[in-house]
Amino acid sequence: MAPHVVPGRELPTHVTIYEVGPRDGLQNEDVALTAEIKVEFIRRLLAAGLPIVEATSFVHPRWVPQLADAAEVMAQLSAEAEVLPVLVPNERGLERAVELGVRHIAVFGSATETFARRNLNRSLDEQFAMFEPVVTAAADRGISVRAYVSMCFGDPWEGGVPVEQVVAVGRRLVDLGASQLSLGDTIGVGTPGQVTALLDAFNAQGLPDSALAMHFHDTYGQALANAYAALQHGITTFDASAGGLGGCPYAESATGNLATEDLVWMLHGLGIETGVDLDALVGTSRWMAGQLGRPAPSRVVAALTK
Amino acid sequence: MAPHVVPGRELPTHVTIYEVGPRDGLQNEDVALTAEIKVEFIRRLLAAGLPIVEATSFVHPRWVPQLADAAEVMAQLSAEAEVLPVLVPNERGLERAVELGVRHIAVFGSATETFARRNLNRSLDEQFAMFEPVVTAAADRGISVRAYVSMCFGDPWEGGVPVEQVVAVGRRLVDLGASQLSLGDTIGVGTPGQVTALLDAFNAQGLPDSALAMHFHDTYGQALANAYAALQHGITTFDASAGGLGGCPYAESATGNLATEDLVWMLHGLGIETGVDLDALVGTSRWMAGQLGRPAPSRVVAALTK
Repeated sequence: MAPHVVPGRELPTHVTIYEVGPRDGLQNEDVALTAEIKVEFIRRLLAAGLPIVEATSFVHPRWVPQLADAAEVMAQLSAEAEVLPVLVPNERGLERAVELGVRHIAVFGSATETFARRNLNRSLDEQFAMFEPVVTAAADRGISVRAYVSMCFGDPWEGGVPVEQVVAVGRRLVDLGASQLSLGDTIGVGTPGQVTALLDAFNAQGLPDSALAMHFHDTYGQALANAYAALQHGITTFDASAGGLGGCPYAESATGNLATEDLVWMLHGLGIETGVDLDALVGTSRWMAGQLGRPAPSRVVAALTK
Repeated sequence: MAPHVVPGRELPTHVTIYEVGPRDGLQNEDVALTAEIKVEFIRRLLAAGLPIVEATSFVHPRWVPQLADAAEVMAQLSAEAEVLPVLVPNERGLERAVELGVRHIAVFGSATETFARRNLNRSLDEQFAMFEPVVTAAADRGISVRAYVSMCFGDPWEGGVPVEQVVAVGRRLVDLGASQLSLGDTIGVGTPGQVTALLDAFNAQGLPDSALAMHFHDTYGQALANAYAALQHGITTFDASAGGLGGCPYAESATGNLATEDLVWMLHGLGIETGVDLDALVGTSRWMAGQLGRPAPSRVVAALTK
C-alpha cells in the first residue's frame, strides 16, 4: 500500500534519507545479533533503495558493546563501502575504518557542556581538540566528515539549550572540516518553532540548509511534525531508523528514533521522491523485528503488518 | 516537565482541544469498565483543563456494547452536561440524551459510499435523510450539532477519496444545520498536502476554518504532522484522545487516535494556549491505563512515566 499523493506547497522534489538503523538503532538494542545478520540488514536496506546507510561505529566496545564487531561487518561490505559511512571517535578509529575501505565518517559532538562531559568525558571546548586530528587526517585521505550535534533542542540535565550555543558548536565543527552537520533532538523534546528558529540561526551564520541534516527522535511523538517543519524550511537530508529501531515506544526507556517508514510515508504522500521502495523496507524491518523478537516501533510497519 | 516554548510563525494563540477519549477511545477498547470509572475519567479530564469532552454515545448497544451505559454515565454528570457532547445516531438517541440534560450532540457521517453502507447501512445520499430529523429536532431544542465526516483522506475499500466528494458531504451536513464539521482521517493514511488541499476546498465552498475541526488518527504515524499542517492553515479546533486511547500502537489492529498529550506538547511548545494542565492529564491517562491493564499509546505519557 502506498500513500495518496497530494504535493505540499514549495517543498523540495527530492529528499535524501540518511539511514541510521544499523548504527544508532542497533547500538541501543539489547539483543545480541551476529555480524552476518547485520550485514544482511545493511544489504537489504540498500536494496530497498536507501542511498546511504550508517553501518556501524568504531567507538571502543567498552562503550558500545553492541557494535564490537564493526571491523567484521565492514570487512564483508567492502564492495558497498562508498555508501556506508561509519561513526569514529578518534584517529585510531579512523585508521581502522580506512583500512576497511570506508570513505565517509561521522563524529559525534555535543551542543551542551553536560552531555559532552558525560558522553565524551570532555568539556564543550575540549571536544573540538578531540575531533581536530580526526577531521584533519580524514581530509588528508579525501574522506568526508559528517558531524552530529546532539542535544540541539533540550538536554536532560540542562533543560533548554540556547540557540546561539548550538550554532557556535556547529560552526566550529564546520570550520574544522565537517561537510555536513546532523542536528539532533537526542531526547525528542523539540517542537516545530524550535526547528525553524534553529535553522534560521544557522542560515544567519552562513550555514545554508543544504549543509544541514535533521535527526529527530520520537520520544515525545514530535519527530514527524518537526521533520515537516524542517522540510518547509528547506532541509533535504533527514536521518531516520528503519522500523524505528533503537526506540521502543512502549518501554519506559524509549529513546525513539524517527522511523524511516513513517518518514517515507509522509514524503511520498507529499509527492517527494526518496528512491525508497516502501514495501521492501517494511519487509526488512519486519525481518529485523523477528531477529530482535519484538514488533518494530514504526507505526507504518505495524499498519502494513495485518 | 513542560516543552521549551518557541512560537511558530503566524499561528493561532489559542487552540480548543475537543477530547474524544471517553467516546471514540473507549468504544474501541476491549476491557469492560464500570460507569463509575467512566464518570471519574470524564471528571478528571475536565479537571485537567480540557474544555469539552465527548462523553459517550447513544448508539444502540448492539453496535457499541462498550458504551451501553451511556444513560447511567450521563445521569451522574448532569452538572457538567453543558461541556459534555454525546454522539447520537437518531431521534430516539437525541430524546434520551436531552432527558439527561445534554446540550450538544454529534452525528457521525461518512465521506464515502462504502463506509456509509457498512457503518450506517445506508447509501451516501440516504445518510442525510437519516440525519435530517435529528438535526431539526436538535435545532428546535436549541441544541448544537457537530457532524463528523469520516474517511476524508482515504477509505479501506475505495482507496483515495475525491476532495469534491468530501466537501459535498460536509456542505450538506452544514446545510442541514450542523454548526461544526469534524473532518476525520479515520484510517490515518493522510499526509500534510492532503490536509491543506482539503481545507482549501472547504474554504472555497464558503466553509471557513473556524467552522471546521480536524480529527486525526495516528495509524501511519502522520497525525501530529497533519495537525501542524492544519494549524498552519488556520484550524483552531482539534480532536484528540487522552493517552491515545482507542489505538494500541503495537497491536495489529491499531486504530490510533492522536494522543491528547502529544498534541498538547506540540501546541505548548509553539506557545499556543490550550488551558490543559499536562501533568494532570498525563496522570489521568496513567490511571486509565491502569484500569485497562496496558500502557497508554501516547509517547508523551510514556516519556513522562519514568
